[in-house]
Amino acid sequence: MLFADEAGMDTQSQQDLIAVAEALADAAREAVLPYFRADGLDADNKLDAGFDPVTEGDRAAERAMRAVLAERRPQDSILGEEYGRHEGTSGLTWVLDPIDGTRGFLSGTPTWGVLIAVGDEHGPHLGIIDQPYIKERFLGGFGAAWVDGPMGRRALKARAPRPLSQATILTTFPEVGDDVERTAFHSLAAQTRLTRYGMDCYAYALVAAGQVDLVVEAGLQAYDIQGPMAVVQAAGGIVTDWQGGPAHQGGRVIAAANAEIHAAALATLSKA
Amino acid sequence: MLFADEAGMDTQSQQDLIAVAEALADAAREAVLPYFRADGLDADNKLDAGFDPVTEGDRAAERAMRAVLAERRPQDSILGEEYGRHEGTSGLTWVLDPIDGTRGFLSGTPTWGVLIAVGDEHGPHLGIIDQPYIKERFLGGFGAAWVDGPMGRRALKARAPRPLSQATILTTFPEVGDDVERTAFHSLAAQTRLTRYGMDCYAYALVAAGQVDLVVEAGLQAYDIQGPMAVVQAAGGIVTDWQGGPAHQGGRVIAAANAEIHAAALATLSKA
Repeated sequence: MLFADEAGMDTQSQQDLIAVAEALADAAREAVLPYFRADGLDADNKLDAGFDPVTEGDRAAERAMRAVLAERRPQDSILGEEYGRHEGTSGLTWVLDPIDGTRGFLSGTPTWGVLIAVGDEHGPHLGIIDQPYIKERFLGGFGAAWVDGPMGRRALKARAPRPLSQATILTTFPEVGDDVERTAFHSLAAQTRLTRYGMDCYAYALVAAGQVDLVVEAGLQAYDIQGPMAVVQAAGGIVTDWQGGPAHQGGRVIAAANAEIHAAALATLSKA
Repeated sequence: MLFADEAGMDTQSQQDLIAVAEALADAAREAVLPYFRADGLDADNKLDAGFDPVTEGDRAAERAMRAVLAERRPQDSILGEEYGRHEGTSGLTWVLDPIDGTRGFLSGTPTWGVLIAVGDEHGPHLGIIDQPYIKERFLGGFGAAWVDGPMGRRALKARAPRPLSQATILTTFPEVGDDVERTAFHSLAAQTRLTRYGMDCYAYALVAAGQVDLVVEAGLQAYDIQGPMAVVQAAGGIVTDWQGGPAHQGGRVIAAANAEIHAAALATLSKA
């Protein structure tokens, strides 16, 4: 978990990265939105013709982001879901998921997102969860976190500790991971007040926004978690694997609003 | 299922009802939004003091809607979730759910909604699903259906038939209804391509918008279903109970994009 001083970056460098990250999110938003709910009236013809809005939207958004990086950060590396790895020289890597929550995207829900992170081998310094349809952007890094959306700009702050019995836990599918992971998840969920499904990456934004206590998932890729991780951490939350170790490479992930509920949840999850 | 001619209403009367329904949605949106995600930074103090944003938001929104009706439609009846029944003389009843999806509202998700319907003992003529945070309004009735939202105004049209094996099915909780209902739901879901949870009333909007094929729920109240029912029907979809009978009083409900997939789903559900 790297913050401003640990990253050894001056304020101007931090501001530059934030500006580029926002430019990436702007570019992705514009590129992907024409594909969202595009399969309305003539869905069936398009599907018969092999049109896949997720694949097309994914690729268009990642290409748009890579074009911005080629122009403004040619020295940085890129790891993207659709177009793989590009090696740079700066030691910084941009980690891109142009559509996280493809099944949500395909179903027309407003809970998928564009995920952007920039960091190094120790994890992300800065991340964005952008929801293009709502025009809502959660950004966190260098010790600050905010959302720009329908209610304007607001600071993000994960919620204060409360007992598991009062907590809300989110995950995307009730069929979390494999049998062992699923059992561990449901064992933890049974100790909470409320379990909700189906929020995709939006779940992490809700931890950062102080609305829920826990997100628990398994089988993640680096590009699934680095953007959300940076946002949650900058809002005061904690993101680790189920043993309390680093999670920026993906796998089994827990995002918690605070250290107390993180510890309470690990007591169950770490047995898996 | 009543459309314009069957309802015996002239165009001016229909336009009046649409205008009042939109005024109700405007009033509810303004009343409820201050309560959404209000439990951010000082959530815990507020909760300690007994502050319940759902209850307060629910009541404020229903009061706002009732004030509009008292002014513009004093002759009509009202059935609201929070303040019960008001008897009018016109034969028309407004059916109001100021916050459908209270658990989603409490978790900060953008999938709860304000539900409004107006109809008679045979069911709704007109309905609205309004999502105040996204500023997205799905309206259907008198043979027309549209959404006003982030992409402007678009006509709503439920999707064309496809086999169950290619369908997407939504419900709010994997723990649908009682044991029998849950078994029936999961038996149906197992025949589809994709099952998603957690969308609250937004699921019905996605049927109307041609994004998904089926919503299946149980244990609904009249105010949970009449608004969504009118929107889905006006977009060409079908809303019934699990036996194919009327659903406007709630209970076990299926919303289907078209007659073919409705029949295919009933083949499983009707055994419950």
